[in-house]
Amino acid sequence: MKKEQNHKLLLSFLYSILLNALLSLYVIYHSLSKPGWGIEAMAEAEAAAAIACSWHGHAFVDSVVVNGRPKCECNNCYAGEDCSILMRDCSADAVSGDPQYLEPYWRQNAGRSAVVLSGWHRMSYQNNAPNYISMELERHIRLLHRAVGNAVTDDRFIIFGSGSTQLLNAVIKAFSSPLDHNSPVGVVATAPYYEVFREQTKLFNSREYQWKGIPSNMSSSTNSTQLLSENLIEIVTSPNNPDGNLQRRSKFLLGSSMAAIHDHAYYWPQYSPIPAPADEDVMLFSNAKFTGHASSRFGWAIIKDEKVYQKVVTYMDLSTVGVSSDTQLRVLKLIKTILLQIREEGDFFKFGYETMKERWQRLSKVVSSSNRFSLQKLSPHYCSYFNEFKDPSPAYAWLRCEKDEDEDCEAVLRNAGILSRGGTMFEAHSRYARLSLIKTLDDFEQLLQKLQTLIFSTDSYSSL
Amino acid sequence: MKKEQNHKLLLSFLYSILLNALLSLYVIYHSLSKPGWGIEAMAEAEAAAAIACSWHGHAFVDSVVVNGRPKCECNNCYAGEDCSILMRDCSADAVSGDPQYLEPYWRQNAGRSAVVLSGWHRMSYQNNAPNYISMELERHIRLLHRAVGNAVTDDRFIIFGSGSTQLLNAVIKAFSSPLDHNSPVGVVATAPYYEVFREQTKLFNSREYQWKGIPSNMSSSTNSTQLLSENLIEIVTSPNNPDGNLQRRSKFLLGSSMAAIHDHAYYWPQYSPIPAPADEDVMLFSNAKFTGHASSRFGWAIIKDEKVYQKVVTYMDLSTVGVSSDTQLRVLKLIKTILLQIREEGDFFKFGYETMKERWQRLSKVVSSSNRFSLQKLSPHYCSYFNEFKDPSPAYAWLRCEKDEDEDCEAVLRNAGILSRGGTMFEAHSRYARLSLIKTLDDFEQLLQKLQTLIFSTDSYSSL
Repeated sequence: MKKEQNHKLLLSFLYSILLNALLSLYVIYHSLSKPGWGIEAMAEAEAAAAIACSWHGHAFVDSVVVNGRPKCECNNCYAGEDCSILMRDCSADAVSGDPQYLEPYWRQNAGRSAVVLSGWHRMSYQNNAPNYISMELERHIRLLHRAVGNAVTDDRFIIFGSGSTQLLNAVIKAFSSPLDHNSPVGVVATAPYYEVFREQTKLFNSREYQWKGIPSNMSSSTNSTQLLSENLIEIVTSPNNPDGNLQRRSKFLLGSSMAAIHDHAYYWPQYSPIPAPADEDVMLFSNAKFTGHASSRFGWAIIKDEKVYQKVVTYMDLSTVGVSSDTQLRVLKLIKTILLQIREEGDFFKFGYETMKERWQRLSKVVSSSNRFSLQKLSPHYCSYFNEFKDPSPAYAWLRCEKDEDEDCEAVLRNAGILSRGGTMFEAHSRYARLSLIKTLDDFEQLLQKLQTLIFSTDSYSSL
Repeated sequence: MKKEQNHKLLLSFLYSILLNALLSLYVIYHSLSKPGWGIEAMAEAEAAAAIACSWHGHAFVDSVVVNGRPKCECNNCYAGEDCSILMRDCSADAVSGDPQYLEPYWRQNAGRSAVVLSGWHRMSYQNNAPNYISMELERHIRLLHRAVGNAVTDDRFIIFGSGSTQLLNAVIKAFSSPLDHNSPVGVVATAPYYEVFREQTKLFNSREYQWKGIPSNMSSSTNSTQLLSENLIEIVTSPNNPDGNLQRRSKFLLGSSMAAIHDHAYYWPQYSPIPAPADEDVMLFSNAKFTGHASSRFGWAIIKDEKVYQKVVTYMDLSTVGVSSDTQLRVLKLIKTILLQIREEGDFFKFGYETMKERWQRLSKVVSSSNRFSLQKLSPHYCSYFNEFKDPSPAYAWLRCEKDEDEDCEAVLRNAGILSRGGTMFEAHSRYARLSLIKTLDDFEQLLQKLQTLIFSTDSYSSL
């Protein structure tokens, strides 16, 4: 009995020793393989990410520091240390095209999409490639367009800009200089158009080009011979901002020998059906609307003609000496993450499309419950990316105030606690207003709620 | 005896159990505290950083991928998979102001200076602050100028740009619009001046301002009454690029009521003595020359007048919608790292100054060994940052070819295998050339060696 006990004790001891050995090995392995210089930055980023802001805000590593830690930055109408207080009498903000609806996607893909910048990452002006461009990023942008099927990139030049905003003026300048004619080149866009086209062109106040307004106005005041002799650059946004329509070049200008710039900021499956790859002379894409990283300031132009491309290169060089290489590294990582899941579980475009479609459907339902407002007409179309017919999922609602007295739709909405962008900004009638649908879920819910209240009060009023 | 053995065995067993318990606690603690979503990105960055490029190059996370890993990007004149092959008949490159001499500092401070960008870091256009500006970064820039003593920031506005390059045109535009006079405002700079001032102003070809050249030429061809009635903007670079002199406004223009933009890209203790904090109406600073992160494209303007500031804000909005927030986060981290060690062990400015001073001394020794070339005259000055007199440590050598027949100094150097920037670019005599001293150590050593060979061959030739 005693001997048996001794045996058991010995056996337990041996087991225990074996466990000691295994655990020690684990500890030694862990000590050897422990993370190096990146650990401090990682801890800092993870700590900021873990700060709870009640799902109505977020704290970032570079948020304002209060009591030793980054302070929550609250969504519109939320306040308090942890953004838990809903403010009364707060207007819903549907003004800016801030694509925050994609933030949940990137949170879900935290591990894949994070980027570490070492202190010595790419200090040189050059990216070991001409024109301050990351070759890996350029290659991945081509892979991306091929995978999505929204633009032809073979035998095309690609150049980066601080958003397509910077590239817009670069391309206009490239088309209009050197000035080989007496009068400056005219820049035109069909209304409703994105107001930055006008404001930016006016800001630069160049001797070589100037804002000329909308082609339909021109053709009514100009005879066709005059028109054909004019040098014009047309900006075509497709899908259009604000109304989401797939646009073509203005019929008023057909036949004239002018250049066109195609702004395809919204030509991605989350906003629009993709009937076929775009294949124009100059195409602009914006990372802001594509991945949702607006403040990274990144966009690219796909250009057919080498001379135009070279002029854009010179512009980029002299205006900002290229684009932040920090951002280029980040965008590369985001595109890699998206490419990894194309048409698979976790597809980025599916996430974006489903979110935007649902928002459009909910808004449509509210608007159609009365005759006070109407929305732009959008119908299902075949999308080559999803390989099926898809319901509309536009980035903006182009709302029309239908009541005779509601001449100023932006003001009508403002009085009801909804901030929007009025039609005149887009050189359209003030009876229209643009509502952004791509902001945070909080923004969208507030918008819907205020709109519902406005429509309900109208109905009550009408029925009196 | 047997009992004693049993006791020992029992005791060992208990010790073993205790050890197991402790080791298990360690393992559990480790599992709980193990890094989260940042680990993949960190491993990727550390793996790229660990790629050996023979100290003559570097691999980055976004370097071109060959055989599954980022390829070394070799310094000038080095080649091979690991940059170990020194190429013959390769010219030393002293052209660009690429501040790579600071890379070793950031490698030494790897842990402190790294940054992790989560996939959802600051997606919104706004930085939760007006004008797309990180408030924490703005605050740290003010702390930095106070700590260094090179600029007054109290009661001044600060605005960010994609390098001071972008801000330059923004400020010129702010000073000249709206055009309240018939002729465009003239932009001038005293030669030798940084050629981008001229090239950029010409590129934008504005109706509101135009390049007018150097003030001394103007005063000789214009009488002083004419001059005073002209609207002029003077760009003053101090210390000057290319010659490193602390500049003041042109004496030719004294008394005229014109605006001035002070470019202080090199007004940091590593390049120049700091006699006192600069305190001008508009001051430009560039992160490229300060921390060495040229490709991040970050600079800032310190502006006294609110109206001028507001116009620059509008320009930033319409030209690029602000500056990359990825870069803003990184610059914040770099400045924090520098502030942590101001005037202490590991002082950033001390590192920079010692490096630049040594390069200048070595170059001076080589140049002074013959009469073929001469350098700009720089003398020791009191520096308030180091609180002592300091020997010169300029970013560039402004070399003069002294031989009668060497009318084109850039060509003389080029024929001897040294690439430089010729004097005419700076609107100075072709007898001058600018040599960049701020590139990699390899670049500097190659430059010295080629210059030594050139001078030696001249001497041999002369003595024949």
